[in-house]
Amino acid sequence: MVPRYSRPQMTAIWSPANRYRIWFEIEALACEAMAEQGAIPVEAARIIREKGDIALAAFSDADLARIDEIEAETRHDVIAFLTWLAEKVGPESRFVHLGMTSSDVLDTCLSVQLTQAADLLLEDMDRALEALKTRAYEHKNTVTIGRSHAIHAEPTSFGLKLAGHYAEFARGRERLVQARKEIAVCAISGAVGTYAHIDPAIEEYVAAKLGLEVESVSTQVIPRDRHAAFFCALGVISSGIERLAVEVRHLQRSEVREAEEFFHKGQKGSSAMPHKRNPVLSENLTGLARLIRSHVVPALENVALWHERDISHSAVERNICPDATIGLDFALIRMASMMEKLVVYPDQMIANMESLGGVVHSGEVLLALARAGISREDAYKIVQRNAMATWTRLGQPDGRSFRENLDADPDVKDRIDASVLDKAFDPAQHLAKVDRIFTRVFG
Amino acid sequence: MVPRYSRPQMTAIWSPANRYRIWFEIEALACEAMAEQGAIPVEAARIIREKGDIALAAFSDADLARIDEIEAETRHDVIAFLTWLAEKVGPESRFVHLGMTSSDVLDTCLSVQLTQAADLLLEDMDRALEALKTRAYEHKNTVTIGRSHAIHAEPTSFGLKLAGHYAEFARGRERLVQARKEIAVCAISGAVGTYAHIDPAIEEYVAAKLGLEVESVSTQVIPRDRHAAFFCALGVISSGIERLAVEVRHLQRSEVREAEEFFHKGQKGSSAMPHKRNPVLSENLTGLARLIRSHVVPALENVALWHERDISHSAVERNICPDATIGLDFALIRMASMMEKLVVYPDQMIANMESLGGVVHSGEVLLALARAGISREDAYKIVQRNAMATWTRLGQPDGRSFRENLDADPDVKDRIDASVLDKAFDPAQHLAKVDRIFTRVFG
Amino acid sequence: MVPRYSRPQMTAIWSPANRYRIWFEIEALACEAMAEQGAIPVEAARIIREKGDIALAAFSDADLARIDEIEAETRHDVIAFLTWLAEKVGPESRFVHLGMTSSDVLDTCLSVQLTQAADLLLEDMDRALEALKTRAYEHKNTVTIGRSHAIHAEPTSFGLKLAGHYAEFARGRERLVQARKEIAVCAISGAVGTYAHIDPAIEEYVAAKLGLEVESVSTQVIPRDRHAAFFCALGVISSGIERLAVEVRHLQRSEVREAEEFFHKGQKGSSAMPHKRNPVLSENLTGLARLIRSHVVPALENVALWHERDISHSAVERNICPDATIGLDFALIRMASMMEKLVVYPDQMIANMESLGGVVHSGEVLLALARAGISREDAYKIVQRNAMATWTRLGQPDGRSFRENLDADPDVKDRIDASVLDKAFDPAQHLAKVDRIFTRVFG
Amino acid sequence: MVPRYSRPQMTAIWSPANRYRIWFEIEALACEAMAEQGAIPVEAARIIREKGDIALAAFSDADLARIDEIEAETRHDVIAFLTWLAEKVGPESRFVHLGMTSSDVLDTCLSVQLTQAADLLLEDMDRALEALKTRAYEHKNTVTIGRSHAIHAEPTSFGLKLAGHYAEFARGRERLVQARKEIAVCAISGAVGTYAHIDPAIEEYVAAKLGLEVESVSTQVIPRDRHAAFFCALGVISSGIERLAVEVRHLQRSEVREAEEFFHKGQKGSSAMPHKRNPVLSENLTGLARLIRSHVVPALENVALWHERDISHSAVERNICPDATIGLDFALIRMASMMEKLVVYPDQMIANMESLGGVVHSGEVLLALARAGISREDAYKIVQRNAMATWTRLGQPDGRSFRENLDADPDVKDRIDASVLDKAFDPAQHLAKVDRIFTRVFG
Repeated sequence: MVPRYSRPQMTAIWSPANRYRIWFEIEALACEAMAEQGAIPVEAARIIREKGDIALAAFSDADLARIDEIEAETRHDVIAFLTWLAEKVGPESRFVHLGMTSSDVLDTCLSVQLTQAADLLLEDMDRALEALKTRAYEHKNTVTIGRSHAIHAEPTSFGLKLAGHYAEFARGRERLVQARKEIAVCAISGAVGTYAHIDPAIEEYVAAKLGLEVESVSTQVIPRDRHAAFFCALGVISSGIERLAVEVRHLQRSEVREAEEFFHKGQKGSSAMPHKRNPVLSENLTGLARLIRSHVVPALENVALWHERDISHSAVERNICPDATIGLDFALIRMASMMEKLVVYPDQMIANMESLGGVVHSGEVLLALARAGISREDAYKIVQRNAMATWTRLGQPDGRSFRENLDADPDVKDRIDASVLDKAFDPAQHLAKVDRIFTRVFG
Repeated sequence: MVPRYSRPQMTAIWSPANRYRIWFEIEALACEAMAEQGAIPVEAARIIREKGDIALAAFSDADLARIDEIEAETRHDVIAFLTWLAEKVGPESRFVHLGMTSSDVLDTCLSVQLTQAADLLLEDMDRALEALKTRAYEHKNTVTIGRSHAIHAEPTSFGLKLAGHYAEFARGRERLVQARKEIAVCAISGAVGTYAHIDPAIEEYVAAKLGLEVESVSTQVIPRDRHAAFFCALGVISSGIERLAVEVRHLQRSEVREAEEFFHKGQKGSSAMPHKRNPVLSENLTGLARLIRSHVVPALENVALWHERDISHSAVERNICPDATIGLDFALIRMASMMEKLVVYPDQMIANMESLGGVVHSGEVLLALARAGISREDAYKIVQRNAMATWTRLGQPDGRSFRENLDADPDVKDRIDASVLDKAFDPAQHLAKVDRIFTRVFG
Repeated sequence: MVPRYSRPQMTAIWSPANRYRIWFEIEALACEAMAEQGAIPVEAARIIREKGDIALAAFSDADLARIDEIEAETRHDVIAFLTWLAEKVGPESRFVHLGMTSSDVLDTCLSVQLTQAADLLLEDMDRALEALKTRAYEHKNTVTIGRSHAIHAEPTSFGLKLAGHYAEFARGRERLVQARKEIAVCAISGAVGTYAHIDPAIEEYVAAKLGLEVESVSTQVIPRDRHAAFFCALGVISSGIERLAVEVRHLQRSEVREAEEFFHKGQKGSSAMPHKRNPVLSENLTGLARLIRSHVVPALENVALWHERDISHSAVERNICPDATIGLDFALIRMASMMEKLVVYPDQMIANMESLGGVVHSGEVLLALARAGISREDAYKIVQRNAMATWTRLGQPDGRSFRENLDADPDVKDRIDASVLDKAFDPAQHLAKVDRIFTRVFG
Repeated sequence: MVPRYSRPQMTAIWSPANRYRIWFEIEALACEAMAEQGAIPVEAARIIREKGDIALAAFSDADLARIDEIEAETRHDVIAFLTWLAEKVGPESRFVHLGMTSSDVLDTCLSVQLTQAADLLLEDMDRALEALKTRAYEHKNTVTIGRSHAIHAEPTSFGLKLAGHYAEFARGRERLVQARKEIAVCAISGAVGTYAHIDPAIEEYVAAKLGLEVESVSTQVIPRDRHAAFFCALGVISSGIERLAVEVRHLQRSEVREAEEFFHKGQKGSSAMPHKRNPVLSENLTGLARLIRSHVVPALENVALWHERDISHSAVERNICPDATIGLDFALIRMASMMEKLVVYPDQMIANMESLGGVVHSGEVLLALARAGISREDAYKIVQRNAMATWTRLGQPDGRSFRENLDADPDVKDRIDASVLDKAFDPAQHLAKVDRIFTRVFG
């Protein structure tokens, strides 16, 4: 992910320094466990921990360069790290990594990084949820037109719209919690997962210390269906971001103007057109959603590794793990901030709702005619006839409102009272259940 | 999904007859609930139920044609159905669908169909799990070589391989249970989800009768993140199918021959080469996995509907809902059957394992040298040197086994006893923890 | 593809009858070529052709059932067909398929079907292009507001918008011509592409008769990069359909109403809201685009077949070949028809353009100030200040138009003449180059 | 793309310095053209060019920081650059960017960068093609077994395999040339593509100087179907890389060992198993192919921008443009190098081919029986019977070779001479047409 769409908190998780810190932690914990078991000297484990902690605390670009230098020769990243560690720890380093395979370190480290990332994403979601909730309550009774097919349908409230997005993100949060659980596993099981040279107790010890579960059965690696499920969860959440972003983009369009992204002092919308105030945040979120979603397929393709593992997944994960989590972290915070500061225009909402001459109340009129004993088919024809008469003459000198047309139609006025029509044209009915829905959503 | 990859059980769920049956059920239940509430006459609800039940029970191609005919004029599928129903039910039909919108019927019906599909898929998975478990126990102690990078690594057991696949499908089953829950929701909330013309109690009644949960907040539709999550779950499961299929394809290749798909009497592998016995089932499963996985992205793209809904999702779902569930149903049953009948060749497994002159035991030798006090770096060089000497002369007249090379190497023989090497070359150590792993996996 | 989105012309290409007709044609042509070479008796080739033609001309469901029956035993589709053919042709059938492999028939047949499909798609595109061109010329000078970020930018013409879509589909047509060429290849090269049992002259003869090129080097199959490129071309075209569909959806939205899909007599927009006239065609096209695009990834995944081929691609192609071509054929015709009948509202276009108080002319005012010697930075501030003053008071009692605000601003009026502003506010300047662009696009 | 999979040549194309250099070039060229037209003073254009060239030549991190600082306020990247440029150029800067819109600069710059990237990729492909051609000729007559379904089929030559990959990359190269042409376009057409404030002659001048074609009709942007087609071309090429990579991985697997990636001195295959020599390059290429392929879908999703443009594509392109081109550049060079140094084992190829007791010659025996007048059906049964008898007893004490079984079968020996069988078992027949194929492929 390009720096433009990155926050330091998430980027740090994917830094070499964090990775090597975790690698060492896994190795050091495994040594402690082996020492407890008597497999290696207690003193060796102590020295490894002590000297390693010092080396990692002082980890610098020089260390990074040294590791890269070793890897250039060995062409193996874990061996390069272990060799560097040996240079720091001394002779006791021969007790490090005993009976383990590289994937024990690599995969358990990835689990730690992904859980760290998930924890940050959960915080982000909480902020996004809070923003949506606040704005939803603020606009619980702000009347606006509901639209299906981008055509005015019936009134609703702006708060209710936001409550729907809140509920979607709340589901997304649950999915993320579940996805975090999927990848919060530790595997220290040796070359092909048989624990031939290492006791399962080592794995249990390391897992407990790292806050992970033990993988019930690994091959050489932690199975990639777990990671695929994780990226799926991110993909679904990002699609929810896109849905909200598309809503904002629609609301800000020149002909709608019901809401606007906050426009900063000094901000310029266009190099050529000084009048422009563009919904660039929500457009950006739309693009970021495409990116995050694009990581789902390669994650799925990574599942079918050959036999006990091949390393094709590695190049994919080195890219999509940071890209997807950094991108989603950035997008969630940007979305939360956008919603916190969204400028809402309730008057314009009313104006738009009323701009179609009242046809948006056709559904209730249809019901009123049905209640008056007219068949569904006939009622539909009567209402559609009057609505279309309104619609096609909108803004014309001879145009009449839907109500005026209905009042002039014998099929209507002879059958239902004006008071019934009055009620049918009252937006209040559409907000009557909002409290009940809010209780469902926000508890 | 083409008929070739379809089973009638799943296809039936997506038939027009099943769809119309469910549509009617939703409408009839809603009428019952409205009657209970006093919103429509009890007698009307009774007649709708009675006459509708008869019409649906006798549903024929003529009815299908009639509905299509009406839709050709109205260009609206739900209105076409309601008009047909009115022809069957008579005047009481005017109480049908009161205050509801098409999506109330369409989306709740889709929820019912997807849960029906999920239930069948769960049965399929149970059969697949059972097959994997049975074969895993059968081959719990069948020694075979574990491979990373498709290169011999260390011995494992064939049953342990299968246990890994079992565990993956068990996770997949849990994901499917969760995904089923995601889409087992009912929405009867009217035009834009405000319950303006219909009481939430109607929705609650219908949901309870259909075994669904009530959607906490709908727009005009049930939010599509639910469906996206459903397709993601299918995509991850299909990738697990691919992993097992790729394993079988590898095991059956001419140079490996450790297992074979059952070859039917009369079956022909090739029109040109009568000797061929090809792993066509597992290859087919690989292709089906690609198909099922391909439905994930359009499902994600369906999430960001405009405002309270647009209908772009419809064309996608009309295709991917049947395609993905029919395809996965077929694939799971084909996979289960393939595994039930898989022909396994333990002798060939041993022969392959031994074909590399014993270098597969290099890991344990490395540890033995380390335990003898040699540094990791030096031990690695010693072992690699001897392994490569074996490897590069494999099958040559002057070739020596890994053990022979080690025995001749002063750096080895001067430091560790022959008995230690004997132990290092014993495959038994690799199976020692299999019971423990099986307990973790199968309980 | 579900029947709802299928046209019979394209569906027929993918029918079993067409497939078997092509299979026979390939076999019969190969026999003719072999007879010419003296590899088989001329009389045998004559009888095969004669009896085969009769059998295929009379091909019925009974034949289909018979082939399926044989395949159920042999589990091999080409062998099943050849066995059925032998039943029809008699003893001379032993000269059929000599030295060939199934893929010679399957892949060459697929090439024929895909070229047939491509030819139909090219016709579709011609109709779509014609519709776009006609409407573009019709509205060459219909002034409408151009929008970036869905915010009013500067005036343009509706015809110019359509010219842009025309140019995109013209590029798509070229890509399709190229893609057709990619898959218009014939391979009759035997088991692994070595022509071990069949002379390359046979392939050349069949290719020439079928209007195909000879594959320069096949494995057992025609390489799948060709098919992947084909599906990519369809994917790009479908994305162009989506772009036009999204434009129409925007133009039809209640607040814009600049254009509308033709609304059929009798058509109903909503079961609950009789006033609705929804852009269902363009929404449907959006969904179809998602579907067609979803076939690109599995087509790409099909490329990396194992060694000289595996059969994983088959299940994918049995689905995506018909689905993508049927879907795109349907979508192109639907789109062409939609554009032919699109109802355009030029008055509303003017009304919308003028609704923002003239700020859409800010760019030209900026230039006028720059020409008057004001620095870019200062000019920008002046113009933005007046535009925002207009924008934020739009529709308010104290609101002033952009021109009024400029006229009252000493930084403007002291520096540029009213006549210069008059010119800056004249939409004509935005249409001055339309002829030139049309010449570029339409020639 | 992470640095690990990046080469400096390609990375440089996507550096801020290169981008700003191109931005300036576009602005300076536009000024020159405007001066030629008399739209701005010639002296101004000269000063802009002169001072700008100096500023860009001296471009440093401080300049980068200054631009970022301005963008932090204006939230607009092009305005930030223009403001910085104004600081360097002085008062004449007011003639820069006159009548242009940001996208004129952004999109034309992207065209330049993508063509630069394409040129480098074409060089890479040439190296890859050269490597494949060299190795193909080297192994033109190296007999190896052809495999379908990973099962031995019939002999072929290793050179012929490589010729097939060569032909695929040659097609890929043509697609890349075409894709380069697609995006080598310049648009300088103002706010919504109407040239309202800028003469088309400016665009023509800039295009010619930059080696680009003029976009026939732009909106605000160069239409994204061009870019989508570009990424599709990269996706197809990457799938070809995957096909070759998968071939190498298969050939190197322990049971096949027909070829091996070059293993560097000092290289370590595994931290736990010193004997390992893993095909890590080809596995890595497989993963990179997944990554590059994953950019196709977001590129397709970018096509349907709203109206004259929205900016959702931007976030996508900022990532996938560098990621896909850097990744493919790295992958092509890695693949070329891997093929240049691939270690091939012809003896092992022969050994593998012969390991199945000669059943790989079943196709020719089938034909021999057919030529002897036996029906296809009967001949198939005879050959399959003997092949299976061989296959199922492979390596058993009582196992007999295919030839031995045929010699003992009266249905065979009574009908065809031993000399015919001798010929059927001669691998030479399979190489007879290799020269002809090579001529087709390599000319």
